[in-house]
Parts: sequence; C-alpha cells; structure tokens
Amino acid sequence: METTIKVLEKVKLRKPILVEGLPGIGNVGRVAAGYLVSELKMKRFAELYSPHFLPLVIIHDDSVAQVLRCEFYYYKGKENDIIVLTGDTQSISPEGHYDVCEKVLDFCEKLGVKRIVTLGGFAEGKIVEEPKVIGAVTDKKLIKTYGHLGIDFGKQQPVGTIVGASGLLIGLGKIRGMDGICLMGETLGLPLLTDPKAADKVLQALAKMLNLRMDLNKLEKIIKEMEEKIKKTEKIHKKILEELPKSKEDIKYIG
Amino acid sequence: METTIKVLEKVKLRKPILVEGLPGIGNVGRVAAGYLVSELKMKRFAELYSPHFLPLVIIHDDSVAQVLRCEFYYYKGKENDIIVLTGDTQSISPEGHYDVCEKVLDFCEKLGVKRIVTLGGFAEGKIVEEPKVIGAVTDKKLIKTYGHLGIDFGKQQPVGTIVGASGLLIGLGKIRGMDGICLMGETLGLPLLTDPKAADKVLQALAKMLNLRMDLNKLEKIIKEMEEKIKKTEKIHKKILEELPKSKEDIKYIG
Amino acid sequence: METTIKVLEKVKLRKPILVEGLPGIGNVGRVAAGYLVSELKMKRFAELYSPHFLPLVIIHDDSVAQVLRCEFYYYKGKENDIIVLTGDTQSISPEGHYDVCEKVLDFCEKLGVKRIVTLGGFAEGKIVEEPKVIGAVTDKKLIKTYGHLGIDFGKQQPVGTIVGASGLLIGLGKIRGMDGICLMGETLGLPLLTDPKAADKVLQALAKMLNLRMDLNKLEKIIKEMEEKIKKTEKIHKKILEELPKSKEDIKYIG
Amino acid sequence: METTIKVLEKVKLRKPILVEGLPGIGNVGRVAAGYLVSELKMKRFAELYSPHFLPLVIIHDDSVAQVLRCEFYYYKGKENDIIVLTGDTQSISPEGHYDVCEKVLDFCEKLGVKRIVTLGGFAEGKIVEEPKVIGAVTDKKLIKTYGHLGIDFGKQQPVGTIVGASGLLIGLGKIRGMDGICLMGETLGLPLLTDPKAADKVLQALAKMLNLRMDLNKLEKIIKEMEEKIKKTEKIHKKILEELPKSKEDIKYIG
Repeated sequence: METTIKVLEKVKLRKPILVEGLPGIGNVGRVAAGYLVSELKMKRFAELYSPHFLPLVIIHDDSVAQVLRCEFYYYKGKENDIIVLTGDTQSISPEGHYDVCEKVLDFCEKLGVKRIVTLGGFAEGKIVEEPKVIGAVTDKKLIKTYGHLGIDFGKQQPVGTIVGASGLLIGLGKIRGMDGICLMGETLGLPLLTDPKAADKVLQALAKMLNLRMDLNKLEKIIKEMEEKIKKTEKIHKKILEELPKSKEDIKYIG
Repeated sequence: METTIKVLEKVKLRKPILVEGLPGIGNVGRVAAGYLVSELKMKRFAELYSPHFLPLVIIHDDSVAQVLRCEFYYYKGKENDIIVLTGDTQSISPEGHYDVCEKVLDFCEKLGVKRIVTLGGFAEGKIVEEPKVIGAVTDKKLIKTYGHLGIDFGKQQPVGTIVGASGLLIGLGKIRGMDGICLMGETLGLPLLTDPKAADKVLQALAKMLNLRMDLNKLEKIIKEMEEKIKKTEKIHKKILEELPKSKEDIKYIG
Repeated sequence: METTIKVLEKVKLRKPILVEGLPGIGNVGRVAAGYLVSELKMKRFAELYSPHFLPLVIIHDDSVAQVLRCEFYYYKGKENDIIVLTGDTQSISPEGHYDVCEKVLDFCEKLGVKRIVTLGGFAEGKIVEEPKVIGAVTDKKLIKTYGHLGIDFGKQQPVGTIVGASGLLIGLGKIRGMDGICLMGETLGLPLLTDPKAADKVLQALAKMLNLRMDLNKLEKIIKEMEEKIKKTEKIHKKILEELPKSKEDIKYIG
Repeated sequence: METTIKVLEKVKLRKPILVEGLPGIGNVGRVAAGYLVSELKMKRFAELYSPHFLPLVIIHDDSVAQVLRCEFYYYKGKENDIIVLTGDTQSISPEGHYDVCEKVLDFCEKLGVKRIVTLGGFAEGKIVEEPKVIGAVTDKKLIKTYGHLGIDFGKQQPVGTIVGASGLLIGLGKIRGMDGICLMGETLGLPLLTDPKAADKVLQALAKMLNLRMDLNKLEKIIKEMEEKIKKTEKIHKKILEELPKSKEDIKYIG
C-alpha cells in the first residue's frame, strides 16, 4: 500500500494557497486549521490515507470505525482560494514524513498551489502570558511581504529546526519553487495539551495574511466540539512524539 | 519479497462474506475462527506469506518446519458462502499491517466479497463474569441490520481504537465500499491467555449473524487441539504486542 | 539499492545441493561451512550484497576495506555438485531476512537446486558434554531419507522455532517445492562464542549425508585461521542478535 | 519519495576525484571538506535530498527554512578535477546509508569518477597530542601509491570497521571498479566535539595526495564560520549516532 489521496470532488481553484494544520505541540496547528474549516464552512474534497500512519481505526459516534486519515478542504476566496490540510495524525516514521509530504505537494502542485502556510506551536517550556507568533520562511523576500503582520522572524526567538509536516512541506515545496511560511504560536509545549490561546494568535496572523474576515470568538466552542476526537487521538500523537528525536530541545517544535 | 497469496484451489464463491480471526488479545479471534474452520469442515484454498511477519519457521509434528503464514478457508453456505482468514501471526510493523490488509482486500474483492466480519477480544483489564460482545461498524446503517443479535454497539462500552487487522480490514474495506463489522468478546486481556468464554460469545453472535447451525460444545476440545500451535506462537505474538503502542489503554483491543 | 548477487563465474552444476552456514549461535553454521569451503578447496563464484546488512566496511589485512557480504562457493561432487553459502553477516531487519533469502532462492533455483541443507547451533543454555545433532525438515518423508545418520528429529529435543536464514531458507524453499533440512549442533549458546565441538558434529552428519570424505582433524586449525575475521564481525552479530526477538527461549536457535 | 540529486549546473569534468566529508566523529570529515570548498572557492553544482534523513528543516539566517541535504561542489584542477561531497547529515537508517551511497556513486560514475577519497575522524577515546592520519584502501596496490604521504596504513593502529558513508562509498565503489581510500584523523572522539587539529592533519595529507596548494592557516576561522550550522545540526548527528551500533568499539569510526 502506498500513501494515496482519494479525491471526493474534482475542483478548479483560483491561485490556491495551502494552509496546513496537523496534530503537534499544543495542537495549535490542528485546532487553528479546524477552526478555519468550521468558520469558513469549507468543503472536504479529498482524503489522504497512508501506511505510515498507525495501523488502527478510531471509533467515533459510539461505534463507527474510521481509518486514520488527513483531509483536504477548500474555500473560494476573493483573490485566492484556500486549501486546508488537517487530519487525525502525522506519519509515525521519518521516511513516512517525507513520503506523505511529497504526496501532498504532488497533489497541490496539480491544483496550482504556489504558496504554502503551515501552522503549529512553538514549545517555550514555560507558561507564556502573551504568546507571540514566530515565523519561518523559505525565502528572505517573504519576510518583507509579511513584515507588517506582527510576526517575529527569529529576532527575539531563535528557532533551530522545525520537525514534521510543518517544516517539510515548506522545505520540500521550496525545491519545487513554491513559497512557504510557517507560523508558530508560542505555547507551554506539554505534549497533548491543547493551547487555544496560541491557536488564537496564529489564527489572527493568518486571517490578516489571507485577508479573511473571521469571528475568532467561537474558538473555545470549536475546541470543545473537537475534544472527543482530540482525546481519542491523544495516544496516537504520543506515539508519534515517542518516535521522533528525544532530546528536550528537539521537541521544541513539531507541527 | 512482497506479501503474496498462494492460491491452492481456484474457487467460485456466491456472495462470499469474509470472516477474520487472527491472533490477538485473549486469542479470541483466532480461536473462534479456528472453531469455525473445524466445525464447518472448511477447505483451505489459499495461503498468505509476508516479509512483515517474523523471520522464522515454526517446528510442528516434532520436526517439520513451516514459515509463518495466514490461511484462507471457504465454506459453501445457503445464502452466502463464507471465507475464513486465520493464521499464525499478524504483521510485526505498522507499514506491514497496512500492506497485509490491502493484499487481503485485493484478493477478497476479486472473489466478490462485499461484507467483512472481524473477530477479536476486548481487554477489560478485569475478570468478566458475563462477557458481552461489543460491536463496531463501518456504517451506522449496519447497527440496524445487526441490532437484534444482542451486540453492544458502544452504548455501555466505549471503544477508542481497534489496532491491527480487525480494525484495518474493516476500515480499509470501507474505502472500497465494503461493509464491515467487528465483533469483540469482552475478556480479561492478559496477553497470550486464551479465553474460550469470550470466543464462545463471539461465535454465538457470529452464528446468528451468518445463520449458521453450529454445535458450540466442542470449543474447549478444539482449543485443546490448537494448544500446541498456540504455545509455539506465543513468543511471536508477544513480539507483535511489544511493537505496538505501549500505553495501557492502547492495548485494550488488538485483533 | 536492492539485495544483489554479483556473479564472478558462470557455472553449470549437476543436481546441486545448497549448504548454508552463516553467523549465528555458537558460530556453528559459519564455521562448518568455512571448513567445507577450505577442505574441499571450493571456488567462489558469486557474492551477495544487501542494504539489509549493517552499513559498514570491515578492514582486513591491516588496511583493506570490504563491504559486508555473503559468498557462494561450488564443488564438483560425484552425484551432486555442492553450493556453499557463507559470509560475514545475516540481515539486520526482519524484512531484510525475507528479502535476502528470497534472492538466494531465486539464484539457486536457476542453478537447479532442489535440496537445501542449512547448518547452525542449537542453544542448550548449559554445557553439553556430548552434543547431538538435531534436525528439522520441510517434509516428513525426509526423516526417513536421513534417519540412519544419527540425527535427532525432535524426539528428545523439541525445537520451537528456527530464526533467521537457516529457518527461512528451508521454509521458503518448501513453498517453491524444494526439500530442506536444517542440522543444528547442540551448544552452550553464549552469543559470539564459537563452538568447534558442535561444528564438528554437524560436519560429521553433513559428510555422511552428502557422501563426502573429509578429514575433520583440521577443524581447530581452520577456526584459528578464521579467528581474526570472526573477531572483527563479532560486534556485527551482536547487533543482529539485539534486533531479533528478545526472550530467552527465542534465541535458542538463530542460524 | 526517493533519494534524489538535483543538478544545478551541468558540468563536464576531467578525470574527477570524489572527496567526501560528511558529519561524523570529531566532525573531521565535514570540517575538512568545508575548508576545501571555501579555500578552493569551489562551486555548488548539485544537491542531494533523501527520505532517509531526519524529517525536519533547519532554520538559518534567523528565519529561513532549509530541508536537510548534502551538496556537491566542483573544482577545476590541473590533472584532475575535484568533486566535494559534504552536507548537513548522513542517513539515519542502515538501509538509507546504502541507498544514499549508491545514488552518490551512480551520479559520480556518470561524471567519470574513478577514485574516491573519504575523510573522517578516528576515535581514540583519549586525548591525542600528535594526531596521525590513518588510512584504509580498497586495494593493497593503493598503499604503494600513497605510501609516501605519511599515512598510517594500519600497522600501528588497527581499524576494525568503518561505519557510514566514508566506509560504504569506498566499499561499494570498489564493486564498481573504483579505487578508494579513507583518511581518518586521530581524535578524542567525543560525539559532537569538532576537532580542528585532526581536520588539519587530514587536510595536509589530502593536499599532498591531490597536489593542491592550500593555505591551511585559515582553518580555525572557517570552523568559526561553520559553527552556527554545526551547532544547529548537533542534535541531528546525535540522533544518527544513537541509531548506529552502540558498543564503545563500534563508534570508533563513523564518518
């Protein structure tokens, strides 16, 4: 079995931008992406299955089994259409991360994606009263483009590495000539502890960046709705964290 | 080497239903499937070999070596023919689980399978006086179909995830448009401890579901006959359990 | 990179029998195979390289680097020609074991091999004064064929599983219709401790089986000559043992 | 995703020699290769990406994300052109090491490479006042060729194995008929501690071997310039070391 993307609806998108938010530190990316999907009433149009995910089904609605998967949603915007990639899990092996990200990029390249925004949390290791949004880009020119959005581009907060999909998608996209930016909300960084505050900050920056009008007041409500699923996949994410580099510094950013 | 299915006999089956019972918690699935094969005098028609199994041979009959394998049996039923998938082992790697299950589904799809029933044990972590049969389905409509069989569809017993073949077969089958139901007999859940009582309950539910007349009184006898093989593969299953997610909750269901 | 066999000399062999002796418990198989190669002045005609071996070169003759490999030798016999497979290492991953063994069988099938004899040690866990040779076969009929050679076919010594090439080669060969027998010399079974006594017994049985006249008195001398190489690959075999199933019983036989 | 080499400039090279220096013990190979690139003002003409590297991006220049990669540089020499292979990382899995090295050899074979020089450190486990350069070759005849350069070919310092790219490149190159030599500078061998003294000795031997005039006095300066990158990839190399054989002797040479 290979990583496969099952297309549910053939879509034509105008200058689409990929926004990725998968489970990771503080669940920041996943929660932010989930809010976007819900608030913009985005439509699911493709699903990604992979042998690099844990070999299990999740039971939802009491008794309905569902293989782990990621999902693609789309939204028709003014200037740019938006694709959101979110889901239950990331790959559990290093090779798997590369494989899944390349499959996502193949798919998005065909849809015309030229810009990728990845969302995640940045583990501070301590409680952060006023979380900032830290940015990393694939090209220095993008710092100018996004300089007015209040994102901290490494001046105050040096990031060493970005592990997982949020890093690889922009890094591998760059090789294909795509622009990439990763937005990381500062968070305590205890594994599996969802941080709505950091997600809120990331969503604010993203809304400005994509010129989206969104009511961010429903975030807590949406997180509550996602809670059951988040709880069920907790163990899955724990497993993923276990497989990745162990040193304290290494897990500062996984998204 | 790839996972391969060696066909021993070309068969034409009428509306066949796949019943899977492989080693797992309480050996419930494997013992139940083994009873079915023995009681219905089913005929072996295919064997599955995989590089994702442990690299060893089992010695049976004192000195005869046999590579680990799974086996397909068939039975000519009234309305539906039945295929049973059982065997020595499950895959020892996450990717392997996906690979083996996809190969099984490819094979069964060609044989015309449209419904899959997987059998296993559900680890309660305590002794269960009156084990129930817990069910998970791929589609809510199936709860109605099987609602009269006394299966608990999650109302009293919430299942989080189903790890391994019993989960993946129905989950991946669903993507291909197959219906799937997983029957789990409540059991203590000590690894490698065969539980005939849970197997009995699962077989009762299965017999009703498939409209089969079976004498379930010989179960203890059959288990005794299987004992030598069960003992020899104990270490193999221990190894598989070691490879899978470690947290206590995670191993509640592996089948 | 795939597992590849580099042919040094194209040979035509008459009813060839494959004899395998690779590093394992007591180094019994490897030492016995090495003795055969030396005593019969066998000629190397092929080499096997694999990405499933450890990623390193051994330095021999003070400063000459050599990638880990297995080697094929041939001997022109009276009734049957003999192929010996020996080498530095076995695979370090479960999937690798299957891959390497399948490649060996593909190669040998083309050369006309219909019978496989694998050699190894059987770990008793205690010092054995008079080591027996224990046998496992792929078909009961072979017990009759080899019944007169003083091999113990499981009556006194029950073997549960045979891990690694000695098991898989005969097990996977059986699926292709090849006959297989595994000869295991009883040994203490401390990892990495070469046991000449067990190797001697295995060679005696093998000589009778293949109708070979061999002077077995030079065994100690040959082992001394092999010592440097054995020492250099000790760490490699330790690594392999670490990767395989851990329980005490499991490592009773790896060859 | 496969290991891929992205060619930035099509080059025609005259009798090119491959010089490899990747991260490893004492960072000797990487630092020496980096010095060569800087001092000879070599030009980058290809990049290697691989799913066998850690799944992450490094952030450099405060906020610019870059996928882990290796790089090829070239220099137009008098008799021989020189290709340098250096980079952020080596493979993190055994199979990956083989895969990456084979891809490098495929690429270099097409460019006409017939000789490979790999650079690294040899862990002494104690402080070395006057580090020697230890050599390993793929063919005894090469000892004569390089005998006058003051390299110790194992007489005083027996090397058991060479783990990783420095070993595999010459070992696998030998199978393709390429000559190979590995130069190892004696060093303390604490993981992740860069040793300029050992790198200096290796560079001296290399300069003589390749008939290069180089000012080696800027080595400390160059190392300082490389420091930021070295620090960021420290964790990555730690991870690689963790994946490789554990025993003290085994990590004597990884390069």
